[in-house]
Formats: sequence, C-alpha cells, structure tokens
Amino acid sequence: MTVVRAVQELLPAEDILYLGDTARLPYGSKSPETIRQFAGEDARFLMARGVKAIVMACNTATAHALPCLQAQYPLPIIGVIEAGVDAALANPHVERIGIIATRGTIRSHVYQHALALRRTGLIIHGQAAPLLVPLVEENWLDHPATKLVLKTYLDPLVEKGIDTLMLACTHYPLLIPVLRELLPADVRLVDSATTCAEHLKKELLRLDLLAAAGHEGTLEVHLTDLSEEFEILAGRFLKKSPGRIHRASLGG
Amino acid sequence: MTVVRAVQELLPAEDILYLGDTARLPYGSKSPETIRQFAGEDARFLMARGVKAIVMACNTATAHALPCLQAQYPLPIIGVIEAGVDAALANPHVERIGIIATRGTIRSHVYQHALALRRTGLIIHGQAAPLLVPLVEENWLDHPATKLVLKTYLDPLVEKGIDTLMLACTHYPLLIPVLRELLPADVRLVDSATTCAEHLKKELLRLDLLAAAGHEGTLEVHLTDLSEEFEILAGRFLKKSPGRIHRASLGG
Repeated sequence: MTVVRAVQELLPAEDILYLGDTARLPYGSKSPETIRQFAGEDARFLMARGVKAIVMACNTATAHALPCLQAQYPLPIIGVIEAGVDAALANPHVERIGIIATRGTIRSHVYQHALALRRTGLIIHGQAAPLLVPLVEENWLDHPATKLVLKTYLDPLVEKGIDTLMLACTHYPLLIPVLRELLPADVRLVDSATTCAEHLKKELLRLDLLAAAGHEGTLEVHLTDLSEEFEILAGRFLKKSPGRIHRASLGG
Repeated sequence: MTVVRAVQELLPAEDILYLGDTARLPYGSKSPETIRQFAGEDARFLMARGVKAIVMACNTATAHALPCLQAQYPLPIIGVIEAGVDAALANPHVERIGIIATRGTIRSHVYQHALALRRTGLIIHGQAAPLLVPLVEENWLDHPATKLVLKTYLDPLVEKGIDTLMLACTHYPLLIPVLRELLPADVRLVDSATTCAEHLKKELLRLDLLAAAGHEGTLEVHLTDLSEEFEILAGRFLKKSPGRIHRASLGG
C-alpha cells in the first residue's frame, strides 16, 4: 500500500488493480519454493484481468520470484529491488550501505548481490528485522518498544559506520520519522516505495504505455482474505480509504 | 509444539502425527471464514492418515472452527479452550480473569463466553496481544522490548485487579518466566498447552483409546512449508529436535 500511494502520487492517471494475498501473508518468513508458487498464482490472477504491467510491491517476493515471472510473461514486471539499488547508488560517494529487511530478503542476498554487481568496493551490511512488519501493522510507530527493537537492529549497523540505510521492505516507509530520530543525521535513507514508483514510470514511458493525462485513475482492491484490519491499515498507508474490496480466489 | 511437548510428557506411549500449516501461518489475524476453510483442510489431511483423535493446538482455529469439525467427524476433536476454561475455574475463588490471546481469539469472545456460561458473576477482561507470537518466534523471551510490549498489554489487566491470567495462545508458555517476573505474585497463570494434554488424556481414557503402556510413542512432523526456522523453533519448544520433516500438500 505504500507503493500504491507512491504510484498514485506519481502517476495519477493510471488505473491500479491491487491484489493482496492477505490469506497467506506474511511471505517474509516462508521458503523460496513456497514464495515462488504463491507469486506465480498472484501473477496469473492479474494477467487474467488484462493488466499492462505488474509491480511486485514486496521485497521478499521480488527476491525469490521476479526472474521466473519475467521469463514467463511478456509484459513489464517491476520489482522493488532494482529501483532501490538505483536510488542507493545515485549518490556517487556512497561507501557503506546498511540494509534492513525481512529474514527472507536478507538471506536471499539479492540486494547485496545487486549492489556488488553495480559497484565494486562497497561495504554492505544486511540486517534481518523480522519484528518491524508486525510493529508497523499494529501502528506502534513511535512506541518505546518499537524504538528498543529498532535500536537492537540499527546499533550494529551504526557501529559499522554506514552512510546509507536501505529500507528494503514496503512496510518500512511508515517508520521513517522514528528512524530519522534514532539514526545519526548523516545517514541517508533510501525507501523502496517511492523509488519503485519512479521505476514504473520510466518503464511505461519507454514502452509508450502511459495512460492519457486528464483521466482520473481508479483503485480496485482484491484480497484473498477480508478482515477489518486491512481497511484500517489501508487507510493508514494510503491516507484515504479504498473503495469496495473484492475477495479473490487464487490457485487451483 | 508446546502442546506436543505436554502430550509427550503426559502420554509417552502415544504416536503423534503433527501437521503445521507453516505456509499459511499465522492464523491469528485472519477472518473466521478463511480460518474455517484452512482448519477443514487440515482435518481432512489428518483423517486421511487414520488418526484416532485430533488436537487442535491453536486457539484461533479452535475459536472459529471446532464446532464445525466436531459436527463433521465422529472421532474426538479436542480444542484448547474447554481445557483452559476447566483449569481456570478449578479454583473456586476465582473472580477476575484476564485473557491474553491473538486478536482473532479475543474478538471471537469464545473464552469470555465459555467462562460466563460455566460460572456467573465472573469479571472477565480480554486483551489482544498480537505482538507476542512474533516475539516468541524470534526467541526474544526476555529482551527489554518484550518486557515493554508485555507491560503495555498487562498493565490494564493488573489495574483491573485480575486474580487469574489465561495464556490463550499456545506460543505463550515460553513467556511464563518473564510473565512471572512482571505480574504480581498472587496472579495465577493458566496455560493452555498443559491443560489441553490433560483433557486429551481424559477423553482417550473415557473412550478406551489409550495406547498400550510400554510402547515408545513416535513423532511424525508434516509441514506445508519447510524452512530452517521451524527446526530451530521446534528444538526450542520441544527441547529435543524432531526427526525427518515431511512436506504436506493441503487443499485441492
């Protein structure tokens, strides 16, 4: 939803079809094999509805399933990783990069690998931060417990003198204010939601697929499990509530 | 796994077939409809393997799916709720009961209802504690952040003068040491894992289904998603590691 919001802001004329696999969330702690299976089912659902591009707004799914899906389908499939890596390396003086993400993303070494391929000599520290998603979902954005959890994750990165911190999970943008408070002022934050929206715009432009300006883009939400929490969360992530929510059936 | 351990200790001759729906965990924040669908698939998997009794070692699943499954199958299906309620009311002087559980269990009012049916005049306070499962799974059992989270959940219950605290989630027994430290000494803890094993023993005795003594019970583990985390977790919950783990396919 942080990505939806960034796309709405950057590309207000585009219609967005959002699929949230809320029945099987979170993907962060699941095995690569299971994540690939789930992501494949998610993509089939969207393809069947005639989308022109797919944004995989989940770092864990991107880490494990993006190459398979890109090989399988002819349309642009945008992951959050390349966009984030571009943004992190936009500053030519970057030397020491910290990455916080779910355990699945950190273990996949996908960010570490993508960064190292693009620039030699970088010092990269990955830190799994599995408690941040539940804390964000509880909206404990500046609870003292959240600060203690963050300090536990961040202290080792700060000790290593990072100059850039990549927020490699689409939940984390909501933690930017508390991260700013806890980190030294000279550590740059790179957030994958806004960078991903910029990457999508570039791709749509390149392929001449942008919607005509003037049209007001719609948002259609499909979830595999309907629960009150989603609407509360969506309201928080989007700053306006989504319309009617549809129940999606995947697999089979 | 806390229930498996309690059953192994109380009924060492019984063979245990464990099914963990790790691909779709956690159930705690999902809707009743989805939980009933998942629990039905779980039960079909176990029935197909010829079990003589089913223990639903999950409070959320028990809260939403137990009556449906009991109506559908002829064998004993033990939930964690009745056992916990029995244990809480074993003390005739109990007056004020606090319950901590996932949001799904608290919202279902299943404990509140079962307690109120069994004894009039009880004062019952339910407190959703959704961050405890992730903290236990991270093994942050006495981390300062865990204590802050627990204090946030427990303070309102302590202020209301509870004499009994029900741990209405099978993850929570691992928090007993820190709960003891944070709660006033006269608050009694009732844990659903051990009470559930006792309830199973009573049912098997009543139906003359107990395994012959002398046989050493086995443990066979089936999971819908295999991940390293499970083996680490299982080792912690069981105090000995399980044998070979099988991958289960549900649904379809």
